[in-house]
Amino acid sequence: MALVMNHEALNEFLERAFPQIAGQVRVETLDDMQLTARLMVSEQHLRPGGTISGPAMFALADVTIYLAILARIGEVALAVTTNATIDFMRKPEAGCDLLAECRILKLGRILAVGDVLIRSEGAEEPVARCSMTYSIPPKR
Amino acid sequence: MALVMNHEALNEFLERAFPQIAGQVRVETLDDMQLTARLMVSEQHLRPGGTISGPAMFALADVTIYLAILARIGEVALAVTTNATIDFMRKPEAGCDLLAECRILKLGRILAVGDVLIRSEGAEEPVARCSMTYSIPPKR
Amino acid sequence: MALVMNHEALNEFLERAFPQIAGQVRVETLDDMQLTARLMVSEQHLRPGGTISGPAMFALADVTIYLAILARIGEVALAVTTNATIDFMRKPEAGCDLLAECRILKLGRILAVGDVLIRSEGAEEPVARCSMTYSIPPKR
Amino acid sequence: MALVMNHEALNEFLERAFPQIAGQVRVETLDDMQLTARLMVSEQHLRPGGTISGPAMFALADVTIYLAILARIGEVALAVTTNATIDFMRKPEAGCDLLAECRILKLGRILAVGDVLIRSEGAEEPVARCSMTYSIPPKR
Repeated sequence: MALVMNHEALNEFLERAFPQIAGQVRVETLDDMQLTARLMVSEQHLRPGGTISGPAMFALADVTIYLAILARIGEVALAVTTNATIDFMRKPEAGCDLLAECRILKLGRILAVGDVLIRSEGAEEPVARCSMTYSIPPKR
Repeated sequence: MALVMNHEALNEFLERAFPQIAGQVRVETLDDMQLTARLMVSEQHLRPGGTISGPAMFALADVTIYLAILARIGEVALAVTTNATIDFMRKPEAGCDLLAECRILKLGRILAVGDVLIRSEGAEEPVARCSMTYSIPPKR
Repeated sequence: MALVMNHEALNEFLERAFPQIAGQVRVETLDDMQLTARLMVSEQHLRPGGTISGPAMFALADVTIYLAILARIGEVALAVTTNATIDFMRKPEAGCDLLAECRILKLGRILAVGDVLIRSEGAEEPVARCSMTYSIPPKR
Repeated sequence: MALVMNHEALNEFLERAFPQIAGQVRVETLDDMQLTARLMVSEQHLRPGGTISGPAMFALADVTIYLAILARIGEVALAVTTNATIDFMRKPEAGCDLLAECRILKLGRILAVGDVLIRSEGAEEPVARCSMTYSIPPKR
């Protein structure tokens, strides 16, 4: 499906609409097949012991899939997550950013489905896998 | 399964081990069948427009199931979430705390499964439903 | 939400619309809160070793939630499963039917969510837990 | 991770251990990255109206991930599904076989995670997406 926003437009949208997230997450690359977003890991994402918290990875997956949908339907739409499944598979590397790669598998009239693999930057094995369904409100 | 910690011991554990969460979440009630936890909703849990964010609800479900497991195996164990599925079903009431009710459905030697219904305080219809699997490390 | 079909009407519907399933699954009880369905376990549901197969339990959960939705919206609707999550938690008892208890957690205009606990007849501990989302087509 | 069984050995295993499934599912290709399996669609997989049933797609995903794990650990192991999530995204093409492509995302000492995309043969868009966790019993 054709893209209607590029990665710069998505980052500008993030700064305007979600300023508290814009300092943490940034779209790195975007093409027809895949969007890659970076979580700039800082103290607020860590659990005691230095590991990245599950909710921080969930939040990264959520915003990544959301942005990949907006790249295809534009920022007018008010999509909301209806279902999310996440598998935590490995411990992230300490002191590394996370990179989330998203594919949109379905973009229907009312539902969209995407999945994400999250890796520590520079690592090959994924730390988490997530799939989400978004409900897309009817056009006015 | 018999409880080895009561709700006060769980709240003390939370303050000691997860001080950043202890100010947000509190165990309200606990018996053999169910643990109820409260998310004291504040600015940090909100999205633009005043709705509670998905990651905040995910984090509430996660800590609630974690505490319900610890209530049965004690705080020595280092359980980690391996899988989580969450359905976001309704918009939470503005300006209300969230209450999460957890059941432990399985507590095996290596895996535990629990589920949670989250409601706005005073409301009957659930805003979210979540189930999670925890991996329980072997005893040393 | 008020019921528009009782358990006999659901069983008649099953025989008429899904004759191949009607011989395997039967609605036992139905009220505002819960629908209970029975899987009459036979050779076709078993794996080598005599255990009930995962797909057989998935199919039971699927038809149980479907019938609980129809009980509320009537058999005119053509609801389809869009998402399903199942946790297999224990081995079913050999030679026992399975009982599936379903709650409808949300019945919206376009999406419905239900969950199910499956037990071996006479056993207390659940063998599986499942939640599903159904898409409900618009009324003509 | 290195393969210890090739696709012919997997098909032979299927015929020997699961004769009732061997007539329905066949491994087509296998390499380090991916296993592809075919569901030879027949009457037994169809719902009224000719669409392939959800449980038939669930069963295909289940056996595909199971075989991809065995390809890496050998047929001695008795792996069991503990969690499965499936998204049904499109209606399969009538009269077409289904092809399931599986990646193993984690193969740990006690848990393995894989995901699957299912397509109608010759089609590009996936009809379903599934991820599963398997529990791997300790070696004796």
